[in-house]
Amino acid sequence: MSLVTLVEYDDASAEVRAVYDDIMKTRRVDWINNFWKALARDPAQLRRVWENVKQVMAPGALDPLVKEMVYVAVSATNGCEYCTYSHTASARKQGMTDAMLMELMAVVGLANQTNRLANGLRVDVDERFKP
Amino acid sequence: MSLVTLVEYDDASAEVRAVYDDIMKTRRVDWINNFWKALARDPAQLRRVWENVKQVMAPGALDPLVKEMVYVAVSATNGCEYCTYSHTASARKQGMTDAMLMELMAVVGLANQTNRLANGLRVDVDERFKP
Amino acid sequence: MSLVTLVEYDDASAEVRAVYDDIMKTRRVDWINNFWKALARDPAQLRRVWENVKQVMAPGALDPLVKEMVYVAVSATNGCEYCTYSHTASARKQGMTDAMLMELMAVVGLANQTNRLANGLRVDVDERFKP
Amino acid sequence: MSLVTLVEYDDASAEVRAVYDDIMKTRRVDWINNFWKALARDPAQLRRVWENVKQVMAPGALDPLVKEMVYVAVSATNGCEYCTYSHTASARKQGMTDAMLMELMAVVGLANQTNRLANGLRVDVDERFKP
Amino acid sequence: MSLVTLVEYDDASAEVRAVYDDIMKTRRVDWINNFWKALARDPAQLRRVWENVKQVMAPGALDPLVKEMVYVAVSATNGCEYCTYSHTASARKQGMTDAMLMELMAVVGLANQTNRLANGLRVDVDERFKP
Amino acid sequence: MSLVTLVEYDDASAEVRAVYDDIMKTRRVDWINNFWKALARDPAQLRRVWENVKQVMAPGALDPLVKEMVYVAVSATNGCEYCTYSHTASARKQGMTDAMLMELMAVVGLANQTNRLANGLRVDVDERFKP
Repeated sequence: MSLVTLVEYDDASAEVRAVYDDIMKTRRVDWINNFWKALARDPAQLRRVWENVKQVMAPGALDPLVKEMVYVAVSATNGCEYCTYSHTASARKQGMTDAMLMELMAVVGLANQTNRLANGLRVDVDERFKP
Repeated sequence: MSLVTLVEYDDASAEVRAVYDDIMKTRRVDWINNFWKALARDPAQLRRVWENVKQVMAPGALDPLVKEMVYVAVSATNGCEYCTYSHTASARKQGMTDAMLMELMAVVGLANQTNRLANGLRVDVDERFKP
Repeated sequence: MSLVTLVEYDDASAEVRAVYDDIMKTRRVDWINNFWKALARDPAQLRRVWENVKQVMAPGALDPLVKEMVYVAVSATNGCEYCTYSHTASARKQGMTDAMLMELMAVVGLANQTNRLANGLRVDVDERFKP
Repeated sequence: MSLVTLVEYDDASAEVRAVYDDIMKTRRVDWINNFWKALARDPAQLRRVWENVKQVMAPGALDPLVKEMVYVAVSATNGCEYCTYSHTASARKQGMTDAMLMELMAVVGLANQTNRLANGLRVDVDERFKP
Repeated sequence: MSLVTLVEYDDASAEVRAVYDDIMKTRRVDWINNFWKALARDPAQLRRVWENVKQVMAPGALDPLVKEMVYVAVSATNGCEYCTYSHTASARKQGMTDAMLMELMAVVGLANQTNRLANGLRVDVDERFKP
Repeated sequence: MSLVTLVEYDDASAEVRAVYDDIMKTRRVDWINNFWKALARDPAQLRRVWENVKQVMAPGALDPLVKEMVYVAVSATNGCEYCTYSHTASARKQGMTDAMLMELMAVVGLANQTNRLANGLRVDVDERFKP
């Protein structure tokens, strides 16, 4: 149960509706997910976060599907349930198969393992790795 | 300064050298980085972790460069200095440009931000996101 | 479902009841929340953690509401569901509005983002920032 | 040593200089710290992150000093060295004393402790805490 | 609800069944828990992770119960619900009492607290602690 | 460089010296490590944290060496450099060998790996694991 009341489209101000409309248009969907409805309690924050997501996740030097999978990797690392479900769904829409998801999780698990081995043993960074 | 004495090639047992040789051959390099030299204090662990890395990071459903970037993303999220340097170096060797690294960091930063917004506001997962 | 049996007031030892009574008196409430009922499986730990909370959260150099909001910020960062609900409720009792909560979350999200940018790019600390 | 080359003011493009100038004007300082010089490798990201910081950290429903202390709390929780130094310096400039810093750390430490007690014992959220 | 379809024993391939059989035999149980049924979507990963668990958690320089409690400590620190339930159950089977669990949690809470005090105040490592 | 001035024994107040003396007596050492010297900027906090450490780390349902190793496991998971060095040193004093440290790290790494697999795949907790 969200800590703030969700803002439904029908109850939203013009400012919030404009963002909702842009989300639906950009993503080619006809509904708004709960994350945005919670953020809409602060319309300026809703707009700011959405603009960030829109710009960062757009095609650029990296493929959009790669970006979604990186998002899933970070969310799994942080244990964010909402983000894991929502970005896995987005990645699947963009073509991620079960095999790709399982392999992604293998990398995420391995990195979390070796991160602790390096941190726990306090291994010095090799000079050759420094730029 | 590592919490255990690093095992140099010249001082290594045959069991450890066999792993070192496989690392150098697989990666086409002529040196061993400190992470493995620390793990070598436990030869069975050295072998096990290396076999995991070798299998998980090999080409599969995901591109090796994508896997390296996911590794960097997890390491940046966890704040692992050693892993951030070493896997950024690996990713660059596989073709990651500065533009790709900066864009990767943008996604990592954004995911860490929205992970906390979703967790902090305790947003319920939308039914449509569930598989 | 808690991993240990909760200790209800009616079943509590005199030692546990004394802490429960102090919690209710200090907080001006007439019930005990589950966190303390779980800790009460170890009466010495119950007392120790409660004394810590009582001392640390009392008015001092910082305002009690500010402290509650810092608690919420840490809990959101760590993804602790229980603590996010309980400390948000406490902060609201002390006057935190929805606008304040949303702004708090904006700072928490931003800090989590830039923490990873600084860690991921391994930015050196400027000399001027050192004390 | 940063993973990307820092962009010094004298070498910066007009686009980057415009952001640098706005940072110095807004903060009333005559230098740019390394964080921005690293982000400047991606001018669009530099601008985006700066605009976020500028908007989120401006006076609003919360006091700017409170926001800086929340930033420090999150950075200490995540173990971000750069952010801990830089935001502690900012908070001191805005009036945080040693007594306030120590008390802030006490809250951060306590919250990190009880977050794990609640998560580790899997304590159910009390109905009364739900909004 | 798992993000991948669980693989039940009756529907499993010979490769997956072989791992399931080894899990049940090694642990002297007659059922497979959901973690393995999810990993089984990638049979090679199922085998790899199981071999790791089997080797790492076997008796060695540390007592198996100590290892299970360390597993619980890490899982509580990371807020992993599944792992906290499953490894607490394993530790109880191996003899962990309520008193031991509560004391373990006290250490976990304390370590999470002092970790942030040391990181937040940026305390330099004493030379005498270095190996 | 610590964010607060360390309080040396010779400059300490009677209140702080009393805690320092108790630390040295309890631990049978003749010096005070930096962590306490930083905390001493807030004498009440110094006393409170020390009392917590003294009580929690004393012999009880768990062996003191086991507790130190759990402390190391948490510190490695959180990436706390200071705590990893200091508690590894303590554990070694209490008898932890290199073989035990390496095996401890193997468990820590494995737990961090499977925590993310369980969280990333959102595996439901088996009913049989619930108490």
